[in-house]
Amino acid sequence: MKFRRSERLVDMTNYLLDNPSNLVPLTFFAERYGSAKSSISEDLTIIKETFEQRGIGMLTTVPGAAGGVKYIVKSNEEDSSLFLDEMCDIMAKPDRILPGGYLYMNDVLGNPQLMKKVGRVIASAYAEQEINVVMTMATKGIPIANAVASYLNVPVVIVRRDNKVTEGPTVSINYISGSSKRIQTMLLSKRSLEEGSKVLVVDDFMKAGGTIKGMTDLLGEFNATVAGIAVLIESEDTEERLVDNYLSLLKLSELDTKDKKINVTKGNYFDVIAKTK
Amino acid sequence: MKFRRSERLVDMTNYLLDNPSNLVPLTFFAERYGSAKSSISEDLTIIKETFEQRGIGMLTTVPGAAGGVKYIVKSNEEDSSLFLDEMCDIMAKPDRILPGGYLYMNDVLGNPQLMKKVGRVIASAYAEQEINVVMTMATKGIPIANAVASYLNVPVVIVRRDNKVTEGPTVSINYISGSSKRIQTMLLSKRSLEEGSKVLVVDDFMKAGGTIKGMTDLLGEFNATVAGIAVLIESEDTEERLVDNYLSLLKLSELDTKDKKINVTKGNYFDVIAKTK
Repeated sequence: MKFRRSERLVDMTNYLLDNPSNLVPLTFFAERYGSAKSSISEDLTIIKETFEQRGIGMLTTVPGAAGGVKYIVKSNEEDSSLFLDEMCDIMAKPDRILPGGYLYMNDVLGNPQLMKKVGRVIASAYAEQEINVVMTMATKGIPIANAVASYLNVPVVIVRRDNKVTEGPTVSINYISGSSKRIQTMLLSKRSLEEGSKVLVVDDFMKAGGTIKGMTDLLGEFNATVAGIAVLIESEDTEERLVDNYLSLLKLSELDTKDKKINVTKGNYFDVIAKTK
Repeated sequence: MKFRRSERLVDMTNYLLDNPSNLVPLTFFAERYGSAKSSISEDLTIIKETFEQRGIGMLTTVPGAAGGVKYIVKSNEEDSSLFLDEMCDIMAKPDRILPGGYLYMNDVLGNPQLMKKVGRVIASAYAEQEINVVMTMATKGIPIANAVASYLNVPVVIVRRDNKVTEGPTVSINYISGSSKRIQTMLLSKRSLEEGSKVLVVDDFMKAGGTIKGMTDLLGEFNATVAGIAVLIESEDTEERLVDNYLSLLKLSELDTKDKKINVTKGNYFDVIAKTK
């Protein structure tokens, strides 16, 4: 069965989007459509240009017998900036203030369209680095970790505060919550993380950074290394930051429970990606 | 700026895949590309045929001034069947057996490629029904719920066993775990679910169904209704099932801790979708 160029473009676009960061040999597409490799190359040129123009991502071509084409997620800065502006507005709604000065975020974390965009923006910052695993803390970090991992095409591992029979043997550490100064425990299923993994640590919210510091300490127990730290929102209201070299999409600069006022600005995202260029 | 057909096909494919179950007016695309509506219609015919042929999904067109085009996820039965066979093999690996006869599933739940496919298959069964929300129980159900909700383009709400300050006011119920017969508590943030919502309840594993029964009871407290129940894997080893009318992708028919043997077959998926046709 032969496929016309127009059909190939639709199917290849779907295939590449579904398999990010994955090297696809040109012969795979050539066989899939019964087409010459030269036609596939022309198709890929069209897709590459459109992906770049519309801020969908990059197509990189690896030449040679073991070569192929790879889709790498890359949100353009203008789109990312507009999206972060939108997120600032969403997060600054006064009815998010909870007793004790906490921020209600369940609706945002449960919104698949927003999470996809958060995932795209974070993944774009790390797509050209070697990341083997995305790690997060249960429960609120999970939707963000899933979204990021889906674009980087790597597994997610989930650190928990409580042990469950379904985890199998675990490795646990004690850590000090930066804000409340309480000693807490976190644990990770032993077989969920391979030695030597390069790990991107993500979370929804960071104040002093105690939880994230704990996760990076836990990585040491697995002989794994931190390849990056990314949070959706960091709070400016902290005396001491326990981690540096993190990336934040948003910054909570004010949360006034008395006057019901929240101020959210962009985090350090654009500063961080400018440095890695 | 004018776009060629080939560029439009690539960008429209990406846009539609990114916005499932969403009615997109033809004028949106016409303006986006500076093209006549007639050209957009021709583009959509090509995309529709390719989506159907490759088992990506359906494009439905709503005529009239308020009309447009909608992408609905629809995995074809052959692809779904092949995927479920693959999942049976993955789940039947003997080293998944944990002490107490539990099944280790973290690697599967943390694999974004597998979760996307699980999400596609479950969402395909419900894409033509009215679903407003996907609900699950923390922690293991979350990746499945996220994947399903992403294809149905609806929010996820997460039921928890423990209360957290970041949930705000909650509604809680007691329920009896079907297998262990223990009384447990589950709770849901009050503002996370609107009255009258039609809810798809999903979870990773179901034995007697106590947790799922609890979630459906909790929905009653929100005057919300159950639009469907879907689980990744059900266990045959149960005296009494507390829920009926569920959909399962897989069935654990044997887990022998002594001989280290697991047997996993397809669940009732194809029977259920045959009935709804």
